[in-house]
Amino acid sequence: MSNTVKELESMFHPNSVAIIGASSSPGKIGNTVLVNMAQSGYKGKIYPINPKVDNILGHQAYPTVLDVPEPIDLGVLCIPSKFCVPVVEECGKKGVKSLVIISAGFKEVGGEGIARENKIKEISRQYNMRILGPNCLGIITEANFSFSSLSPKKGHIGMLSQSGAMMTGLLDWAVEQDIGFSSFISLGNKCDADEVDFIEYLAQDEETKVIAAYIESVQDGDKFFRIVSEATKRKPVILLKSGRSAAGAKAASSHTGALAGSDIAFDLAFKKAGVIRADTISELFNYCMTFLIAPIPQGDKFAIITNAGGPGIVCTDAMEAVGLGIARFAEDTITKLKKVLPAESNFYNPVDIIGDAPPERYENACDVLLQTPESEVAGGIVILTPQAQTKPMEVAQKITALHQKYPNKSLVASFIGGVSVSEAAKELTHGGVPTYDFPEEAVKVLKGLEIYRGIKEAPLITDKEIPHFEVMAERVQEIFQSVREDGRAVLLSYETSEVFDIYGIKNPKSRLAQTARDAAVIASEIGFPVVMKIVSPQILHKWDCGGVILNITSVQEAKDAFIQIMSNAKSKGPLNADLRGVEVQDMILRDNKKKVNEIIIGINRDPQWGPMIMVGSGGIYANYVKDVKFDLVYQYDRSDAINQLQQTNISKILEGVRGEPRSDIDGIIEILLRLSQLVRDFPEIVELDINPCLVFEAEAGYSAVDIKITIKH
Amino acid sequence: MSNTVKELESMFHPNSVAIIGASSSPGKIGNTVLVNMAQSGYKGKIYPINPKVDNILGHQAYPTVLDVPEPIDLGVLCIPSKFCVPVVEECGKKGVKSLVIISAGFKEVGGEGIARENKIKEISRQYNMRILGPNCLGIITEANFSFSSLSPKKGHIGMLSQSGAMMTGLLDWAVEQDIGFSSFISLGNKCDADEVDFIEYLAQDEETKVIAAYIESVQDGDKFFRIVSEATKRKPVILLKSGRSAAGAKAASSHTGALAGSDIAFDLAFKKAGVIRADTISELFNYCMTFLIAPIPQGDKFAIITNAGGPGIVCTDAMEAVGLGIARFAEDTITKLKKVLPAESNFYNPVDIIGDAPPERYENACDVLLQTPESEVAGGIVILTPQAQTKPMEVAQKITALHQKYPNKSLVASFIGGVSVSEAAKELTHGGVPTYDFPEEAVKVLKGLEIYRGIKEAPLITDKEIPHFEVMAERVQEIFQSVREDGRAVLLSYETSEVFDIYGIKNPKSRLAQTARDAAVIASEIGFPVVMKIVSPQILHKWDCGGVILNITSVQEAKDAFIQIMSNAKSKGPLNADLRGVEVQDMILRDNKKKVNEIIIGINRDPQWGPMIMVGSGGIYANYVKDVKFDLVYQYDRSDAINQLQQTNISKILEGVRGEPRSDIDGIIEILLRLSQLVRDFPEIVELDINPCLVFEAEAGYSAVDIKITIKH
Repeated sequence: MSNTVKELESMFHPNSVAIIGASSSPGKIGNTVLVNMAQSGYKGKIYPINPKVDNILGHQAYPTVLDVPEPIDLGVLCIPSKFCVPVVEECGKKGVKSLVIISAGFKEVGGEGIARENKIKEISRQYNMRILGPNCLGIITEANFSFSSLSPKKGHIGMLSQSGAMMTGLLDWAVEQDIGFSSFISLGNKCDADEVDFIEYLAQDEETKVIAAYIESVQDGDKFFRIVSEATKRKPVILLKSGRSAAGAKAASSHTGALAGSDIAFDLAFKKAGVIRADTISELFNYCMTFLIAPIPQGDKFAIITNAGGPGIVCTDAMEAVGLGIARFAEDTITKLKKVLPAESNFYNPVDIIGDAPPERYENACDVLLQTPESEVAGGIVILTPQAQTKPMEVAQKITALHQKYPNKSLVASFIGGVSVSEAAKELTHGGVPTYDFPEEAVKVLKGLEIYRGIKEAPLITDKEIPHFEVMAERVQEIFQSVREDGRAVLLSYETSEVFDIYGIKNPKSRLAQTARDAAVIASEIGFPVVMKIVSPQILHKWDCGGVILNITSVQEAKDAFIQIMSNAKSKGPLNADLRGVEVQDMILRDNKKKVNEIIIGINRDPQWGPMIMVGSGGIYANYVKDVKFDLVYQYDRSDAINQLQQTNISKILEGVRGEPRSDIDGIIEILLRLSQLVRDFPEIVELDINPCLVFEAEAGYSAVDIKITIKH
Repeated sequence: MSNTVKELESMFHPNSVAIIGASSSPGKIGNTVLVNMAQSGYKGKIYPINPKVDNILGHQAYPTVLDVPEPIDLGVLCIPSKFCVPVVEECGKKGVKSLVIISAGFKEVGGEGIARENKIKEISRQYNMRILGPNCLGIITEANFSFSSLSPKKGHIGMLSQSGAMMTGLLDWAVEQDIGFSSFISLGNKCDADEVDFIEYLAQDEETKVIAAYIESVQDGDKFFRIVSEATKRKPVILLKSGRSAAGAKAASSHTGALAGSDIAFDLAFKKAGVIRADTISELFNYCMTFLIAPIPQGDKFAIITNAGGPGIVCTDAMEAVGLGIARFAEDTITKLKKVLPAESNFYNPVDIIGDAPPERYENACDVLLQTPESEVAGGIVILTPQAQTKPMEVAQKITALHQKYPNKSLVASFIGGVSVSEAAKELTHGGVPTYDFPEEAVKVLKGLEIYRGIKEAPLITDKEIPHFEVMAERVQEIFQSVREDGRAVLLSYETSEVFDIYGIKNPKSRLAQTARDAAVIASEIGFPVVMKIVSPQILHKWDCGGVILNITSVQEAKDAFIQIMSNAKSKGPLNADLRGVEVQDMILRDNKKKVNEIIIGINRDPQWGPMIMVGSGGIYANYVKDVKFDLVYQYDRSDAINQLQQTNISKILEGVRGEPRSDIDGIIEILLRLSQLVRDFPEIVELDINPCLVFEAEAGYSAVDIKITIKH
């Protein structure tokens, strides 16, 4: 049992609870909490804390926690925020194990509130107390330690909500929908225990079978990866993260004061950690209900059985839209279907057993489909529309029985209709076959089950072997140091060139010449033809001031070029530009290559999820062509790199189309891996761009022609 | 009143109905229909037709329709399909105005069924009878003329369904949801009256306020555009079209025997006709319910008012996702909000009136937002989560009152919760403010309203002025004729070149040389340098057999090239290839241009919607870059062409980025318009491709370098 789990135990299952600010006046939070605890059947000891009275609702009250004669596991603070700091201190002294701070008036109000929140954080660390909140509704576990008067049914969903209001709405809704929870936790400002801590707890909690959360931000990306990727192997974790859109993210940050990361990074991070992302609130609960009752499929192809063609088509459409595999039946299966179905049926997927289908026909067709190997049919969607001969309840009973007979196959259903089918739909859902009004919802949850199968089967991300390249990192450190000493954030081209050389990424040979003679010597060493370019921190647009000369083919030309470039830079460049010399660079001759393509590779940093790597179609139009894909550098390995590149349109072109040879794809993968090590090794790199990186036919390699590296100043 | 409307009147409001195959045995279709008619309160005359009995359920029966002494408006056929042909003939003779053929066993069973369906179609034309079906459930209008025993509530949705089973499911569901219909029509095989005829009828039907349909195919694209584009100006038409995916389309065509068009064409066609496309069944009904009660917004920016931050963010996300405008409030509005809201509120959109908001705060905030000009706030989404102080029913009443006060502003709501809010949600919906469980649904329907505003405001598509270019179409006719006479489907390059010249689309000068001397003369006339290429219907890959020589700069070289190419083609080309000579073509010198981009332009034909035009990034990688957009050629005008090009990524590049000049965008628009006329003028063109079309800086124009035209053989 981890420390976190041990520490949070006192919040989930306290033997004694002090309600600080308890009150006997109905409507006050300190009263509601006390009443909720009692009504939800809390069995432990209750200590109301209130200096003004002796007894509240039949419990002896104490002026402070320090006056309570027995030990206290959990303190629930329902007092104005300005009184919280000394009370937290008292709780620490008393040895209270954990606190739920319902009180508002902290980080979310800014100014003084921030200071107050930092103070209670500090005190709680000192006394090793865990805190939920502040600015939250509380927590509902074995009893209701919150000021929400709605206690949901006991069940197996462990639910977190960063928004208290969302929590009340969801609780209210869940009560009506008869959805049960193992715990319901309002996260509040997350000054101490955050979503990851609670996910860690719920992952080992036996009452919890599915973890669901509404969150607006994540505190610590690294911790999230470490803990959540393990939790998702044990049970499904479904997150609704708002602030998806640009405007939404703005609303999120003004609301919680938390810095919402860019959404693409969240998508990637959730995928890496094995989290299933819900797009809407109703989707979140549809997933939960399905995961609670349906088995995870053991294959990825599914059958549709319907008594009506139209909904079968709608269902097929929905499956294609979400990328859920549509089973192709073996000959044997089709032969068996033909034996049990009338001739007018459709024996291929979707199986149409026709409008006059009695329950037995559903039974027989499903039995044939479910007895196939997992690889042929891993499960299915049963569709029913109420026709004259249809007996929905009997169909439901037969399907439920088949679910018992083939417990490993994932079955979901859509019974389209109202009065005629609603009892049957309940029967099915209770019997382990989640049933929805319309096929589209059924498809979505089945896809969720199939995604989770992939999550369970994938190796644990923290176990992945990340390739490591031996490099002279110290020299790179020196270069960065000298750049900083020079008062710059952006490396000059001969510096980037050296960094890339050290990290084993091919780029045109390049050195700095400080005199015309230098230039001639360097050019001879590199080999003609060469390109020469002015080097100056102040000159960003080298072409514009005549700072670039191409195709220099002799020693004499190199000397002349040096003089010409320096003089151009002096006369046409910015006044008082610091001219460091001229870079002499190997010139790539495109005509010598069988195939030349331009790609772009870049790195930036997400505030919550760390470095993010990008690859795609490069060149001067890269920003307009928009053919790039991203991945997070966290535990990024060869297969990630291959997968990322394959998602771009240019990847097909690199593989060789229209009779062209294959490009140096291995080289690109190598760049991605080496760059990801570079940004891991040097957190001071804030941005890195290669555009273009010229990629040639496989045997000719690639060349990172234009590189820009920006470090923290 | 159009003919269609007049003719269908007898189906919607018959004064007398003959039920052919009427029966007194419960469970038989002919019995169910009779019972349904009686129970639904049909007031007209009923004539059961059955040769074996005298009286059915109290109505005098007749052996045939010919024996009925009075006129018959509507005949409902409930007899086996094999008896239908003579009965339809009898109905014709009797002067029956229209028929509902419930009987199955026609086109959908293939073979004999197809012949039978064609026969009844023929007879009905002869006698000028309209037919609904065959193979359908019937029609429910003022009474239930169907064999569905569920009669929905009277209401204002006119509903069509191509799938009978879907109809029973939807009826059943609608009865439970308390949704009312003006009519519910099961289309069946659509042998005569189709979805367009019924949309035309419903568009003028005063009982119908919204038209909704589930369809799997459209019979006649031209008729659809003509009729539906007019209907959508009168009332919203919402279609759920299945067969969206490739697999779905396969299922659709195996089911109904109808050829489902490609989905992109459907999307474009629906947009052109002003149809709102629903993605799911529940969306279809959400749209219907909203259109029935909410006003169409008069602007495109909307406010969010919420008592909880989290759902406000979720709502903002959803608005961005569907592209619904998020209002920015004027200073004056913010000042007013500050007056009526507590200091901790958020006065910007989404307006957060905080968890303790009483009904008056909702009222005051909404009043401020609704009194703004339409251009500032055209409507809003009211979000409520049940907190301690929240009184959902009172909030609902206040919002409903504000809806009365500001009837032109579109208001929708999301009351998140169950028991605490469900009565309030009903109150709101009844009061004209459609209310949903979660913000995402509310956003979707509001977007639907906003889309419909655009549809109403757009000019009628059939009124659009389509540019017409004067061309010598006769000559093109001659070229196509000679291609056909030559037994070819694909034009040779000098033929395409002439067609393009006639239609005013610039392409490299090109003529056919049949001797070496010819080649020299033509080359001199065109001007050097030229390209020369073998011309042979059998040689598709000219380069592979040495059939192309570039950069010919003199008369002598032209002569030599002719001989060389002919000899290469003979020795390396396909055996017995028919060598027509050598094409001499002007050679485009890229280096003379300031800017060269490659685009692709293409045309193909959708079986239901006619020619479709494509434009985007061209060149040898066009198929991999996948930067192309489509439009239908139907009523395609300059603004369509501009809009289509602007949707591509390359359009920004053509406009001029990174200091480059603007390309000849006007030229491209011109090509699109001229090509659309070409394929309208010549329906025999089945495919046309230009790739690449080189586009230069504006003053240098463009050149359609490589053209392929395929005509019907």
